[in-house]
Amino acid sequence: MPEERKTINDFKQLIHLLKERKICKRTVVVWPEESHTQEAVLKAVKEGFIKPILVCSKQTLEDYAKKNNFQTIIAESPEEAARKAVEVIRNGDADILMKGFLNTDVLLRAVLDKEVGIRPKDTVLTHITAAKLAEYPKLLFFTDAAVIPFPNETQRRAQIKYLVDFCHAFEIEYPKIALIHCSEKVDERHFPYTLSYKMIKAEAADGLFGKCIIDGPLDMITSCSLEALRIKQIESPINGQADALIFPDIEAGNLFYKTITLFCHAETAAILQGTMVPVVLPSRGDTIESKFYSLALASLVTR
Amino acid sequence: MPEERKTINDFKQLIHLLKERKICKRTVVVWPEESHTQEAVLKAVKEGFIKPILVCSKQTLEDYAKKNNFQTIIAESPEEAARKAVEVIRNGDADILMKGFLNTDVLLRAVLDKEVGIRPKDTVLTHITAAKLAEYPKLLFFTDAAVIPFPNETQRRAQIKYLVDFCHAFEIEYPKIALIHCSEKVDERHFPYTLSYKMIKAEAADGLFGKCIIDGPLDMITSCSLEALRIKQIESPINGQADALIFPDIEAGNLFYKTITLFCHAETAAILQGTMVPVVLPSRGDTIESKFYSLALASLVTR
Repeated sequence: MPEERKTINDFKQLIHLLKERKICKRTVVVWPEESHTQEAVLKAVKEGFIKPILVCSKQTLEDYAKKNNFQTIIAESPEEAARKAVEVIRNGDADILMKGFLNTDVLLRAVLDKEVGIRPKDTVLTHITAAKLAEYPKLLFFTDAAVIPFPNETQRRAQIKYLVDFCHAFEIEYPKIALIHCSEKVDERHFPYTLSYKMIKAEAADGLFGKCIIDGPLDMITSCSLEALRIKQIESPINGQADALIFPDIEAGNLFYKTITLFCHAETAAILQGTMVPVVLPSRGDTIESKFYSLALASLVTR
Repeated sequence: MPEERKTINDFKQLIHLLKERKICKRTVVVWPEESHTQEAVLKAVKEGFIKPILVCSKQTLEDYAKKNNFQTIIAESPEEAARKAVEVIRNGDADILMKGFLNTDVLLRAVLDKEVGIRPKDTVLTHITAAKLAEYPKLLFFTDAAVIPFPNETQRRAQIKYLVDFCHAFEIEYPKIALIHCSEKVDERHFPYTLSYKMIKAEAADGLFGKCIIDGPLDMITSCSLEALRIKQIESPINGQADALIFPDIEAGNLFYKTITLFCHAETAAILQGTMVPVVLPSRGDTIESKFYSLALASLVTR
């Protein structure tokens, strides 16, 4: 059954793909008590790719849910909303979890609860972002801007697997993944993870991560600029055209995320991986657009 | 003797200030065997703020130095050029050292040589960048994108002192310096330096760093966006208007430098501090403009 498959290079194409495939995911929204979350949800419903279940206050039921004919579960507090939303996921009644107007800690406590949470034992929890920069011709996926401070060997490999899966979902057949460092040299003494990069490269060549091309250490510029690669006379199978970036630690990942948001007008979407369903976990400063794109991202990658 | 003092907010204003003050610094250029270095030097000479001494090949003497009437010292190799240039500095015959077409390692070996180098004992060597971003109304100084992998307590305090001096040279009376981290919380367990940030803040309040305002941990956005600060309901004396950023480590500093260069068209200038004179240490990929601005930066801050 040959199907025309085209790489998704930006968020418009992503929305288009969701429509084309008639994807519509049940999305439980925890405590949507502010306008940005409400608008992002409404927009995603209008585009047709989510069907929301709001775990909200009576006020929000009256002011927002009723008029839009959204399904609701009433809660008295953010804590209760988090518990109830997680229960919906555990019962198999939703495909995506989205955070509204509550502290990340409160939601994560419910998500990670060992008895009644939704994190399968032994999975690695990590944060994945997709960004569209005006200066780059395609989406750039990266991890981790928000969850793992300093990835260990297991966590880094899990991050790579998630990225590979993401890229495949975006119809990138052989995603190019750059292992980021401040230079191209392996320096075991100062930066032990550069040695681990070298091992990961070898494992990728052996097919351990499936269809993908992994190279590193590479810096930000040699990962994403063919011209810079040539000037520096470096050979890399990524060819200055990375699809995805693995950052050495959370400081680097978080800084990249915030720098491109603040100074480059990047469009971003981000979700948490490693839970039973993707969790959309926006921060207070995120735009409606970013929350909307995150819902789209989650809709594509959830099972 | 009251003098009109105006803060320097971009590189044009910097060049203007150098002219106004009739600053002209003797600059020894090591192995200027390629066109970018040659053009940057020529441009700085035309603007009048440097007087070059080239340590170059006979070829460059014939092709470039003679026609521009530049002083030269002939060398047979990059290694010899580095040694001879450092000697010029040691003899007090130049105010700035600039790297041309040779490996950074080769130059640094001569600079850091314990017998005949130009690094005073016990000084901290660090790399300082000044960047102008279209999205930010003033220059943003930061450290360290290139030299210190993970600053220790002494090194971080030295970095701050350099930044304060830089900002003062740019006529910023009370520079606002942000200590960058991925969040605003002190987290001693995962990020010991956030505790050190807290101590540095207290020291700054006690006047240990002179006229300046230091706050942290702050993230990239709360350092540089008043709006984001308000949304997050965070109080900071920096008020989203940082003049300078201290990065936790070289990965973060280097990533910031490369991201703004690659994706934000940032104009940058950078020098090495901690040597007898500032060292302009461009990398191969840097533009002529960036090399020219680095010379201007060095001319302002050298004694």
